[in-house]
Amino acid sequence: MFQRNSVIVFVLWLCTVLLTGVAHATVDREKLLSEPGVYGTFAVFQVHEDWWKLDQASRRVAAAEIKGVIQKHGERVAIDTYLLRGLTEKADFFVRVHSTELMSNQHFLVDLMGTTLGTYLKNTVTFNGIAKKANYVPGFPADLQTALKTPPDPGPKPYAIVIPIRKDADWWLLDQAARTTLMQEHAAATVPYLKTVKRKLYHATGLDDVDFITYFETATPADFNNLVIGLERTRENRHNKRFGNPTILGTIRPLDEILDILTR
Amino acid sequence: MFQRNSVIVFVLWLCTVLLTGVAHATVDREKLLSEPGVYGTFAVFQVHEDWWKLDQASRRVAAAEIKGVIQKHGERVAIDTYLLRGLTEKADFFVRVHSTELMSNQHFLVDLMGTTLGTYLKNTVTFNGIAKKANYVPGFPADLQTALKTPPDPGPKPYAIVIPIRKDADWWLLDQAARTTLMQEHAAATVPYLKTVKRKLYHATGLDDVDFITYFETATPADFNNLVIGLERTRENRHNKRFGNPTILGTIRPLDEILDILTR
Amino acid sequence: MFQRNSVIVFVLWLCTVLLTGVAHATVDREKLLSEPGVYGTFAVFQVHEDWWKLDQASRRVAAAEIKGVIQKHGERVAIDTYLLRGLTEKADFFVRVHSTELMSNQHFLVDLMGTTLGTYLKNTVTFNGIAKKANYVPGFPADLQTALKTPPDPGPKPYAIVIPIRKDADWWLLDQAARTTLMQEHAAATVPYLKTVKRKLYHATGLDDVDFITYFETATPADFNNLVIGLERTRENRHNKRFGNPTILGTIRPLDEILDILTR
Amino acid sequence: MFQRNSVIVFVLWLCTVLLTGVAHATVDREKLLSEPGVYGTFAVFQVHEDWWKLDQASRRVAAAEIKGVIQKHGERVAIDTYLLRGLTEKADFFVRVHSTELMSNQHFLVDLMGTTLGTYLKNTVTFNGIAKKANYVPGFPADLQTALKTPPDPGPKPYAIVIPIRKDADWWLLDQAARTTLMQEHAAATVPYLKTVKRKLYHATGLDDVDFITYFETATPADFNNLVIGLERTRENRHNKRFGNPTILGTIRPLDEILDILTR
Amino acid sequence: MFQRNSVIVFVLWLCTVLLTGVAHATVDREKLLSEPGVYGTFAVFQVHEDWWKLDQASRRVAAAEIKGVIQKHGERVAIDTYLLRGLTEKADFFVRVHSTELMSNQHFLVDLMGTTLGTYLKNTVTFNGIAKKANYVPGFPADLQTALKTPPDPGPKPYAIVIPIRKDADWWLLDQAARTTLMQEHAAATVPYLKTVKRKLYHATGLDDVDFITYFETATPADFNNLVIGLERTRENRHNKRFGNPTILGTIRPLDEILDILTR
Repeated sequence: MFQRNSVIVFVLWLCTVLLTGVAHATVDREKLLSEPGVYGTFAVFQVHEDWWKLDQASRRVAAAEIKGVIQKHGERVAIDTYLLRGLTEKADFFVRVHSTELMSNQHFLVDLMGTTLGTYLKNTVTFNGIAKKANYVPGFPADLQTALKTPPDPGPKPYAIVIPIRKDADWWLLDQAARTTLMQEHAAATVPYLKTVKRKLYHATGLDDVDFITYFETATPADFNNLVIGLERTRENRHNKRFGNPTILGTIRPLDEILDILTR
Repeated sequence: MFQRNSVIVFVLWLCTVLLTGVAHATVDREKLLSEPGVYGTFAVFQVHEDWWKLDQASRRVAAAEIKGVIQKHGERVAIDTYLLRGLTEKADFFVRVHSTELMSNQHFLVDLMGTTLGTYLKNTVTFNGIAKKANYVPGFPADLQTALKTPPDPGPKPYAIVIPIRKDADWWLLDQAARTTLMQEHAAATVPYLKTVKRKLYHATGLDDVDFITYFETATPADFNNLVIGLERTRENRHNKRFGNPTILGTIRPLDEILDILTR
Repeated sequence: MFQRNSVIVFVLWLCTVLLTGVAHATVDREKLLSEPGVYGTFAVFQVHEDWWKLDQASRRVAAAEIKGVIQKHGERVAIDTYLLRGLTEKADFFVRVHSTELMSNQHFLVDLMGTTLGTYLKNTVTFNGIAKKANYVPGFPADLQTALKTPPDPGPKPYAIVIPIRKDADWWLLDQAARTTLMQEHAAATVPYLKTVKRKLYHATGLDDVDFITYFETATPADFNNLVIGLERTRENRHNKRFGNPTILGTIRPLDEILDILTR
Repeated sequence: MFQRNSVIVFVLWLCTVLLTGVAHATVDREKLLSEPGVYGTFAVFQVHEDWWKLDQASRRVAAAEIKGVIQKHGERVAIDTYLLRGLTEKADFFVRVHSTELMSNQHFLVDLMGTTLGTYLKNTVTFNGIAKKANYVPGFPADLQTALKTPPDPGPKPYAIVIPIRKDADWWLLDQAARTTLMQEHAAATVPYLKTVKRKLYHATGLDDVDFITYFETATPADFNNLVIGLERTRENRHNKRFGNPTILGTIRPLDEILDILTR
Repeated sequence: MFQRNSVIVFVLWLCTVLLTGVAHATVDREKLLSEPGVYGTFAVFQVHEDWWKLDQASRRVAAAEIKGVIQKHGERVAIDTYLLRGLTEKADFFVRVHSTELMSNQHFLVDLMGTTLGTYLKNTVTFNGIAKKANYVPGFPADLQTALKTPPDPGPKPYAIVIPIRKDADWWLLDQAARTTLMQEHAAATVPYLKTVKRKLYHATGLDDVDFITYFETATPADFNNLVIGLERTRENRHNKRFGNPTILGTIRPLDEILDILTR
């Protein structure tokens, strides 16, 4: 049994190596992550306890299968992987998937969940959203607009946080000017943290039970803590009917590292 | 074992083919989906993890069994199927069932859940409602009434969204005129999206923990997102005690495609 | 194996037939369901997925065992059975039990849950209440009192709905006259539906997390939907802190039919 | 197999009999249940479905083991047992444990959960509280103080109800005089039920997510229902942020009877 | 089988003994627990019921493995262990981990959950926070500042309580002076309990669904109950949107004692 599995592992590994060598038209990740109109799907997974009852060889075969799926969909979707285990309860990892068609996100996730490892995964939380052009920034004073263009410091930002937000009816019934005033206050509170905290916003109204999915990367969780305290101190906070629940905190990790944790 | 199962699969497939060829009095789907007084049941299913431990042949036999059930009830109920996997957490697919007797919906679902695949399905969410004539439209201005008759663009609308809604006591205590005013504002907000978003409304008060089940189809989730933002900006939104929870987002798929995903 | 089980099934069936033939002092159901001071227990059950892994013969033996329990307790408790499967999520059936001692309801349910089938049942929801004389009716105008005596139309009313209700503190702090005024409005809203919707009220304060368990039977769910909309439009609705959650919708079915669904 | 288990059962039974015969310093239950400063722990258990897959002999051995644990801790803790099965959903029984050290309650429960039966128990709800001298009674008028001393009627009170309560911030910010006024109204509402409903109060603030655990015993659930309706009609009810959730309703039963239900 | 396992246990025990003897650069626990900028992670675990189906020898081997993980991470993280079993529902124990990098907490917990015992652990609750310098104390009157420096009484404080807290928007929108006034009232309420209740505060905004994680140690739960009642009586309590849910109550226990409970 062991020997046979070892051979399979080797063959799969060989395939992976060979495939990786082949030139593939892969999706332009940078473009997908920066342009409006792109759909983002966040899918949180928890490994079922029966997974650990498989022997290591079987788990390795299963893990290798995942890489094939990633490869297959790489032409259409950009995939980022995150380790939640240890920092977020009832969760092991999550994937963030971007594509110009929400259907492509689904196709990838259906294939992922259809692998052997996939059949041991519980999909505990999913958020869907769409990137848009900034709503309020054009109405901000020029100096704030300039400040908001501050690029994040270079270097790795290993921590990632996802916070879903639902606004109350009063928020949506404010006119654009009133909302711009509140968002200006909100934006100003973020300025001191633009270098240490990267942010990306997704609009989710109607696609999910939240209005926004806010995504952050940082190297200093302490800074992020101060940033969110700053945001809680703005009047716009009065209109957050839901903020988090769950807050998803993890670390950015290559797929290999996550699979390694699940197979060792 | 494998051979025997293969034979069973073949025989079942043959039966299906032969049965499909036979003229059946099938329910008039278009009529059921457009007339008042028809009962709609939405049943969300999640596949139990043990399903995946069956070998593929057994899963195929089980999947074929489902088609017989669909056939059997086709005279009384109209059945639509949707894939949720990948887009909605803790769910794999849902069926929307229409008939003139709520009991017929139950009969079909009991038979569906009584199949081999059915015994591996967790029925995580169910909504029941009834279609009615428009309540408020007759009180709207003529031009809005005309605008509301805009037919949806032809072509497939592969995305489907279900949002249950509960109104607060204040809503129900408004008089008809006051509610008509608010619904007029609501209806006007939908006009720009009539071509790209199809809608159907079910009344659920007393039959479920919600007052309305709203059902949407679209080819452009981005448009749907804008539509719901537009609805959130109307005063009627102040009376939504529950909006979603869950919001169910999936894609319209023929049963065969869903069964294929569950058996490959 | 099969043969032996078949024999057991036959013997059990024989016993059942013989026992049914024997004259039994059975409880006076009509009296229990109409008099004050009687305790009603509603117990919702969901069949565990392992049940379906038993072979059919074992399931039939187990089902037959249930009938013996029903018989045994028939002298003290009146038992009604309902199929929820297909219409209410995460539930298969419920029993409604009446007796003059709450303890007798418990004895029956303990024995039911102690059968082989019982060990595969998850008791997901239970409500306990007590029937009382009408609180407010004596204070209503004579014509409303008369109207409220309208008997339901004869003929079967196959649909049953259970809605638990919790009132807010303001409700309980209103004086009797103020509550009577609100309940008069409430009662008037029910008059158009007295023929098509049968109702029974249980008081549950302190015995459960609700103040009332409302139970309905109807042949026309559409009428029931209109009835509850009518109730939502009365001012008394402002005092419903909880209404449903869950709303339990099913069909009245003889035990045999429910057991048949669980064993075929 | 059967024979060997029977021998074990016999030996365990013998041990139990012999042990019971030995003079033991057991805790003074009456004192523990009436004095201030004593810690009460309420632990609700639900039997795991796998328990029922054990053969009866194994279940009997396991049940006998429980009695040894009760004996061992009898010097330090007073233990009361209650059957919830049939009256409270998702629960089979609960134990109420009293001792002068909260740690002693934990020691007993850890040993209980460490038995064979214990490994099949899900501890679904736990409340911890402390008995104190009456806070408000000294400020009540003399006649109310006298009335409150009415002893409960003699005779068994087989029903037990546990209702956890959390007060709102406004309650805690009232001064002692204002709270005494409200509690006087509350206490007066209990007077008509002092004979038929026994009560005991535990303070839980900080030790649990509630401020009070209220415990009741009665022979007449109808009286208890009226008592709680009376309490809902006092102004103090406005300050109950949580009342129940869960309300735990069961019957007082000797351990043997509960074990018998779990082993027959 | 038994013999082989015994040998493994012995070898592992030997390794442990030998390793413990070796001088290790272990983290400075006192410093980590007292300085600002340190990250604390609270991870609550519940043992899966299948754990108890392993034979004792296997469970002992698995438990011994845990000690190796603790050792390995001892250079970077300070680890405290607590027994919840018996006092907190649906939980067996929790670990509190401190380090200067949140990532180190994750590394440790990933390794812990990757052990054999780890694969039987459900991580039901996790909180992450950061220690900071006191926010409001510098603005308090000198005598209160002095009083707050009262050291806790020496001697063991075996009980530990964790209460997560979320403030409302109004709290965060108060200016520093207003918050200082409220916190002064709060701090004054703690003075009588400084000797018997030790406290530590973690800031969690953005890292979790709470703003603060409050941690307490005491020898007298009755004192702790009075302390929290005192805090509920301050105006700052009006701004607690969430207080507990869950409140986690347990006892400080060396890892060996917890593992012993899980393996005996």
